Amino acid sequence: MITNERPRWIWYAGDFEIRQGLLQNFSREERGYDWPAYWYIDDCHKNVKFKREYELQSPTTFVVYATGIGFVEVNEVKYSFEQEIVCQPGFNKIRVNVGNPNGLPAIYIEGERIKSDEGWYCSNFVEEAPVGWSNLYMNKEQDPNKVYYEIETCFPVSKTAVAGGTLFDYGWTIFGSLMIDKLLSEIPISICYGESEAEACDSQMCYYKQENVRKETNIRKRAFRYLFIPNIAPEAIDIRAMHEYLPIHNQATFKSDDSVMNRIWDISIETFTLCSGLFFIDGIKRDRWIWSGDAYQSYFINQYLFFDEDINKRTIMALRGQNEVKQHMNTIVDYSILWIIGIENHYMMSGDSSFLAQIYSKMVTMMDYLEKQTNELGFIYGREKDWIFIDWSEIDKEGTLAAEQVLLLKAYKAMTVCGSILNRDIDHYVTRYEQLKANLMSYFWDEEKGAFIDSYLSGKRNVTRHANIFAVLFDFVDETKKQQILKNVLLNDEVTQITTPYFKFFEQDALCKLGQTSQVHEIILDYWGGMVEQEAVTFWEEYIPGESGNAIYEMYGDPFGKSLCHAWGASPIYLLGRYFAGIQPIRPGYETFLVDPKLDSFHQLTCIFPVKGGWVKIEKTDTCLTICTNRDGGILRIDGKEQPMFANQPVSYEVVKKV
Amino acid sequence: MITNERPRWIWYAGDFEIRQGLLQNFSREERGYDWPAYWYIDDCHKNVKFKREYELQSPTTFVVYATGIGFVEVNEVKYSFEQEIVCQPGFNKIRVNVGNPNGLPAIYIEGERIKSDEGWYCSNFVEEAPVGWSNLYMNKEQDPNKVYYEIETCFPVSKTAVAGGTLFDYGWTIFGSLMIDKLLSEIPISICYGESEAEACDSQMCYYKQENVRKETNIRKRAFRYLFIPNIAPEAIDIRAMHEYLPIHNQATFKSDDSVMNRIWDISIETFTLCSGLFFIDGIKRDRWIWSGDAYQSYFINQYLFFDEDINKRTIMALRGQNEVKQHMNTIVDYSILWIIGIENHYMMSGDSSFLAQIYSKMVTMMDYLEKQTNELGFIYGREKDWIFIDWSEIDKEGTLAAEQVLLLKAYKAMTVCGSILNRDIDHYVTRYEQLKANLMSYFWDEEKGAFIDSYLSGKRNVTRHANIFAVLFDFVDETKKQQILKNVLLNDEVTQITTPYFKFFEQDALCKLGQTSQVHEIILDYWGGMVEQEAVTFWEEYIPGESGNAIYEMYGDPFGKSLCHAWGASPIYLLGRYFAGIQPIRPGYETFLVDPKLDSFHQLTCIFPVKGGWVKIEKTDTCLTICTNRDGGILRIDGKEQPMFANQPVSYEVVKKV
Repeated sequence: MITNERPRWIWYAGDFEIRQGLLQNFSREERGYDWPAYWYIDDCHKNVKFKREYELQSPTTFVVYATGIGFVEVNEVKYSFEQEIVCQPGFNKIRVNVGNPNGLPAIYIEGERIKSDEGWYCSNFVEEAPVGWSNLYMNKEQDPNKVYYEIETCFPVSKTAVAGGTLFDYGWTIFGSLMIDKLLSEIPISICYGESEAEACDSQMCYYKQENVRKETNIRKRAFRYLFIPNIAPEAIDIRAMHEYLPIHNQATFKSDDSVMNRIWDISIETFTLCSGLFFIDGIKRDRWIWSGDAYQSYFINQYLFFDEDINKRTIMALRGQNEVKQHMNTIVDYSILWIIGIENHYMMSGDSSFLAQIYSKMVTMMDYLEKQTNELGFIYGREKDWIFIDWSEIDKEGTLAAEQVLLLKAYKAMTVCGSILNRDIDHYVTRYEQLKANLMSYFWDEEKGAFIDSYLSGKRNVTRHANIFAVLFDFVDETKKQQILKNVLLNDEVTQITTPYFKFFEQDALCKLGQTSQVHEIILDYWGGMVEQEAVTFWEEYIPGESGNAIYEMYGDPFGKSLCHAWGASPIYLLGRYFAGIQPIRPGYETFLVDPKLDSFHQLTCIFPVKGGWVKIEKTDTCLTICTNRDGGILRIDGKEQPMFANQPVSYEVVKKV
Repeated sequence: MITNERPRWIWYAGDFEIRQGLLQNFSREERGYDWPAYWYIDDCHKNVKFKREYELQSPTTFVVYATGIGFVEVNEVKYSFEQEIVCQPGFNKIRVNVGNPNGLPAIYIEGERIKSDEGWYCSNFVEEAPVGWSNLYMNKEQDPNKVYYEIETCFPVSKTAVAGGTLFDYGWTIFGSLMIDKLLSEIPISICYGESEAEACDSQMCYYKQENVRKETNIRKRAFRYLFIPNIAPEAIDIRAMHEYLPIHNQATFKSDDSVMNRIWDISIETFTLCSGLFFIDGIKRDRWIWSGDAYQSYFINQYLFFDEDINKRTIMALRGQNEVKQHMNTIVDYSILWIIGIENHYMMSGDSSFLAQIYSKMVTMMDYLEKQTNELGFIYGREKDWIFIDWSEIDKEGTLAAEQVLLLKAYKAMTVCGSILNRDIDHYVTRYEQLKANLMSYFWDEEKGAFIDSYLSGKRNVTRHANIFAVLFDFVDETKKQQILKNVLLNDEVTQITTPYFKFFEQDALCKLGQTSQVHEIILDYWGGMVEQEAVTFWEEYIPGESGNAIYEMYGDPFGKSLCHAWGASPIYLLGRYFAGIQPIRPGYETFLVDPKLDSFHQLTCIFPVKGGWVKIEKTDTCLTICTNRDGGILRIDGKEQPMFANQPVSYEVVKKV
C-alpha cells in the first residue's frame, strides 16, 4: 500500500507515459532493421519546474536527486542537487528546476518533512498541474528513464537436430533476450527466431534474425517460442532465454468441466499477460506499437483479469501525447474517438475522478479536433491523410459513414458523462449529441431494411455489421430496433461476415448483449477452440478456420507476418466475465454493480472475477449455483429478478435443468 | 563553395537549430549548479521521414547513414542503413524513416546519383518541407548531434603567487576547457575562475569554481581570463587552456588615426566573436542563453562584421522553436515582436527569399499569438506571466505602452514586406497597421510635449526615450516630428537617461539616424573609451562611468554577476559601419545599396565593410576621400548628392576642411 506521504519519483504529469510510449513505438524490429511507428510521436518536456510551499514548525533538512541538470531554490536561494539543504521554521517556498535533454526530467526528494510525496506541482513554464508518478518508481536508486523488468530464466524443453542445425523449443512464448551458455564453434552463428517452428526454421524469411553472434554478443529482446541455429549440432550449443516482464497480478480464475474452455481461458491469460507491460501493445512479435483500437479492447479484458488501473492510465496518456492534437491516433479517426470512449469506460471501472480531472482538458482538445471535421449535419468525414478504418472489410465508404457517426455519438455521450462528474459545462456536447443522433437516425437508419446502412450518399444502401454492432453496444437504439438488427444483420448470413478478430470482439460483445450467449459460447469453442486444436500456446492476430500448413502464418503479404500472440485474441476473458459471469459496474468504481450470470452453457464451473476493491465468486455444480462477493454494492439478477448482495454473504440457488 | 549537389547531413528543417538551442539554453552554470533557462523550451522532432523520387537512366547504388534507428524504403521494399542498395532504371520512390529518442534524427546518403543533396523533403508525418542542412555538417564522419569546435591552445601570459595560491592570467578571454600539465600536489585542488582578477581571487564568490580537481579530472568549458588556484605554489602547477570556437570570418577592417577608436574597434570584434557560435548568445560567462532582444542587436552588428547569414538563421530558428507558440520568447512580449522585425532585416541583408518562405508560417503564427492580446484599439497589452520588458528603466507601465505599440506597428510592416515578397495575402496586416498607426498617433502622441508619452491611461503623460527612439528608427514619424523628438526627448537632459547598454544601442542608432554622428562619436569615445581606460579586453554588459573598485563587477545583486564579454557591447561596429561609413542596403540583398559616409569626426581612416557578395572600402586622408566597392549596385551620396557606383571603380573626393 502506497501512502500519500511516501516519497517517490515525480515528474510533469503524463510525461513518463509519453516518453516511454515513444520508446515503445520505436521498439519494432523486422528482418534486420528498426521500424519506428509511422505517425507523429510526441516526446516528454525537457525543461520543467517543481513547486511547493511548506509552513514549518521546526527546522528540517532534505536532499534532492534528479534525472537531469538544474538546481533547488529555497526562498530564492539556490542550491545544488544531492546536497543537504536546511530549512528554517516558518514559510518556505521550494522550487526545483530540472532540464534533461535526453529523457524525462524527474526528481526524488528525501527528507523527514520535505519530500517528493503527493502534493507537489510541476510546471513546463506555461501550465502547471499536480505531478505525475508511478508505483513502479518509489525508490531513490531507480531512474524513471529505465524500465525495471523482472527476469525469468527459461531453458528449452527440447533441443533437436534439424537440417544440419539445432532447433530449440522453449515450450511457451518468451519475450526477452538470450544468453549463450555453450558455443563450440569458432565461426559466429546466426540465430533465427520463430513464434512457430516453421518460422524459426525458415532462416531466410523468419521475422527476426541476429547474425554474427558469438558467445558474448549482446542479444536484443525479442518474442519467440523457437530458435533455430543453422550449421551447428545440438551438442555444440546451449542457449537459455531470459523472459522479461512487469509483474501484473491476475485477479481472476476460471475452471469448468469443459477442458477446451479451460484451455481457452488459460491461453487467453497467457496471451494477454504477454501483451501487457507498461502499455497495452497489439502483440509482442511484430508491431509492439500502442494502437488505440487494440488498447480499447484491452481495457475491457483488463477489467475482468488484472483490474489494473495503472496500465489503462499509462496507455491512455501515451496514446494522447502532449496537449496539441496534430494527427489522429495512429492516423486513424475512429481510434481517436475510441480513445475518448475508453476513458468513460475507465472511469466507470475505476471511479477515479482525479485521473478524469487530469485528462479532461486533453479530451476536450481531442473533441475540438474531431468536431473540426464534421459537416453541417454534424457528420464526421475523413480529411486528407486521415485513415477511416472501422475494419478491414468491404464497407461502402462513399461520403460520411454510419459506423463513424455512431462512434462519434458515443464520444459526445462520454463527454457529457465525464464533464458532469467534473462539474464542467456540457451543454455543447449535449447539443451536438442530440443533433447527431437525430441526423444519424434520419440519414442512416433504413426502415425498410431494419438496419443502419453504411453510406446514404452512394445510394447503394449497403448494410454491413459494423455500424449496427456499435449502435447496439452503445444503446443508441430501442429494443425494437435492437431486435431488428439482431435478425436483419447479426443473424443474417447474407450480410458479409466479420473476418477480423478485432471486430469479432465487438460482434461477440453485441451478440451477448442481445442475449445470444449460447451462440457466443459455440463461437468461442469453434474459433478459439480451433486455435487450441492447432496447438496454439497464445492466441493469434487472426485465425481462418480451414487454413493449414504454413499459410496460417501469413498476413499482410508476409509469410510470417501474422502475430501469434495478439492481445485482442484474449477476448474470451472479457466475454466470460462480462456476460457469462454477468458482472458489470452500475455506478462508477462499482459503487453498485450487477451480477447477472448466464451460465446455461456450463454444467460445472468455479470462477472469480475482480470488481473494484474486491471480487465476485461464482460456483455452479449440477445442482447448485452459489454467488459470493467480498464487496457491498452488488445486485444479483437471477431469472430476471434482482436482489441486493452483501459482502461475504453467499447466495445459493437450485439449478433447474433446462430441457 | 558548396554546390547543391554535394551530399550533406539533412534533417527536418529547423530541428538542428531547435535541438542545439535547447542544449545552448541548458549550458548555464553558476556556483556549482546548472541553470537551465526559465522558460518553455522545444526539442526537435524525434520521428521523421525523408522523401524523394528519382527517374533513373541507368542502375545506381547508394548507402544511407543515419543518426537514429529506422530503415530505407525503395519502391515499398525495405532495407537497412549502412547497406549498399541498388536502384534500377526508371522511377524510384525513396523513403527513409528515422527515429532518434535522444537527439536529432538525420541522414547522410552516399551515392553517385542518389545522395543527400538539396532536393530532399522531410516530414514529421503531419507536415513536410524541404530538408534542413548546415555547411558545418558536410561530411559523413560527422554527427549533427555534436558540435565540432576548433581548438586553440593557450598558455598563460603570467603566473603569479597570490595569497598562498597561484594566479594565472591568459591575457585575453578564453571560452573553453583546461588541461593540467603539471600538478605537484597530493591534495586535489580548487580552480577559481574570473573574467577579472578580482573575481578569480575571490574563491568564495567567483561565478565558477571546480573543486576536487586532480590532474586527470575532466574540466568543464567555461569563460574566463584568470584562474586562481588556492593553496599551491606557482612552481607546482601548470595549466593550459583550450579555447573552443566555431570559425566565423571577419569581413571588416577599421583603422583610423585615433588609437582609442581603433582599440574600441578591436575590442568590439573580440567581444562579438566570442559571443558568436552556433547562435548569438548574450554573453559567454553568465547566461549563455539565446535572448531575442540581444540577438536582434547582434543581427545588426553581424551585418557589418561577419556578414554571416547562417548564424542569423540558426538564431532565428532556435528562438522560435516548433510551430506552436506557447509563450513569448524568453517570456518577453517585446522580444517576440523583435523576432518578427529581425527577419525583415535579415531579408534586407541577405535577399534570401527561400529562408523567408521557410520561416514565414512561423511568423504568421507568432503574429496570431501577438494579435490575440490586442484590445479594440489594436493596442497590445501584457497577459499574466508576460514580461513587458522594453528596458530596465522607470517607464510608466499603466495600461498599454507606447513603446510596445511602436514595435508592434513595425512588426505589421515587416509582415507586409515579407508577405509581399512571397506573394501572400497581406491585406490583414495592412489593415491592422493602419488602424494601429492612427490610434498610436491619436492616443500616444502628445502635441504639446512634441513627443510620445508612455501611457495615456495613467493621465501622467510621462515621456521616456524608448517609444520615441523606436518611432524614429522605424520611420513612423515625419521630419517635423523627428526634429521635435530630437529636441524634446533625445537632446533633453530632463528626460531620464538611458542607462542600459541594451537600449543605448537603439539610442545611438536613432541619434545617428537624426544626423548626430559627431555626438555619437563623442559618446563612443567616452563610454566605450571609458572601458578601454579600465583595461577591458572585451566590452561589458554594463558600464557606469565613475564606478571603481570591485563595484564595477557587480550586477543583479551579485558581486560578480556582471558579464564582462557581452555581445551588445560590440555596437560600435554597427554604428561605424552603418552611419560613419554609411553603408546600408536599399533593395534586398544589397541589389542596390547606399554609401553615405559621415566621416567629419575622423581625420584619417581606412575601413572595409561587407555587403552581400562583396565589400565597400573607404579611405580618408587629410586631403582625399576614396570609396571603392567590388560590387555593382552602389549609390554613393556625398554632401547630399547621389551618384551610381560600379564594381572596382574607385571614386575620390577632395576633403574640404570644415571650420
